[in-house]
Amino acid sequence: MISQRRYHFCPSCGGAIAYSMPADDNRERAVCGACGAIHYENPINVVGTLPVWQDRVLLCRRAIEPRLGKWTLPAGFMELGETTAQGALRETEEEAGADIELGPLYCLLNVVRVGQVHLFYLAQLRSPNFDPGPETLEARLFAEDEIPWDEIAFHTVRETLQHFFSQRRAAQGYTLHCADIA
Amino acid sequence: MISQRRYHFCPSCGGAIAYSMPADDNRERAVCGACGAIHYENPINVVGTLPVWQDRVLLCRRAIEPRLGKWTLPAGFMELGETTAQGALRETEEEAGADIELGPLYCLLNVVRVGQVHLFYLAQLRSPNFDPGPETLEARLFAEDEIPWDEIAFHTVRETLQHFFSQRRAAQGYTLHCADIA
Repeated sequence: MISQRRYHFCPSCGGAIAYSMPADDNRERAVCGACGAIHYENPINVVGTLPVWQDRVLLCRRAIEPRLGKWTLPAGFMELGETTAQGALRETEEEAGADIELGPLYCLLNVVRVGQVHLFYLAQLRSPNFDPGPETLEARLFAEDEIPWDEIAFHTVRETLQHFFSQRRAAQGYTLHCADIA
Repeated sequence: MISQRRYHFCPSCGGAIAYSMPADDNRERAVCGACGAIHYENPINVVGTLPVWQDRVLLCRRAIEPRLGKWTLPAGFMELGETTAQGALRETEEEAGADIELGPLYCLLNVVRVGQVHLFYLAQLRSPNFDPGPETLEARLFAEDEIPWDEIAFHTVRETLQHFFSQRRAAQGYTLHCADIA
């Protein structure tokens, strides 16, 4: 589990933070000794897509850490001011320059260890041409037998790809997959 | 949309924050003028359940602001160290003291205006007896024609209840509902 000691000073007033349990709470929080403000720390969402073109899927080779050089689905942190779907579309545009039609929510994967929830949408590519942004070295399509399984950047990406190919082989439709990643 | 000016001082070093766009970014962030740390602000998840007992559903009357005295489904902010499902179970225990068997993810509702994503799971009550916690004035079961529609605390709770009763009347099963709340 990620550290819960991220606060040393109050972002509101600059006062010193002490971690303690507020009277009406049941866990320690970052409490400002000067102004009394409580600063909560919560999991954040990573949103992305699984873009499909005929029998192939789009992967992006990362140009940034972590996992520089490894392959990922287009995904990133959800921002304020957008929905989960809008964030997934934005990340696909930013990282791959791909033109997609967003489909249904396809995977919801909890990654408790790092305080994240990963949400992947199915997507249909409208074209097999890409224009990767600065976070991506290369964007290309892979058939199932071409997937670089040993070079996948994140567990949630591997889980999403495995679920997709498993359901495609079964040929009984695509349904939401919820799972927890150790 | 919620304010993006939550930081005035750096929670790491106490230095003054200025909002500016980092070189490799495309939006303004809270950047510390002293240590250079960038503090991101992202949407947070609210997790809860729709607990069902025979033909009735469980609602809780809120003992706290906001919406004190209004009726809600058991739900609250997802915490670090738990999955979405664990958080939904925890909130149901804390707010209603209800014994449930958690079902599938049922509603994912974006509330962009307040920077939240609300996730509700279907749940079966194992007993019609409750033991509400300090955040709840009263927990009780409602048939569809008893729901206090004008006294529902949150748009996402109304949306989840409407979707459930609509699908129950249609009698063709319960499927995930994704929507955006204005």
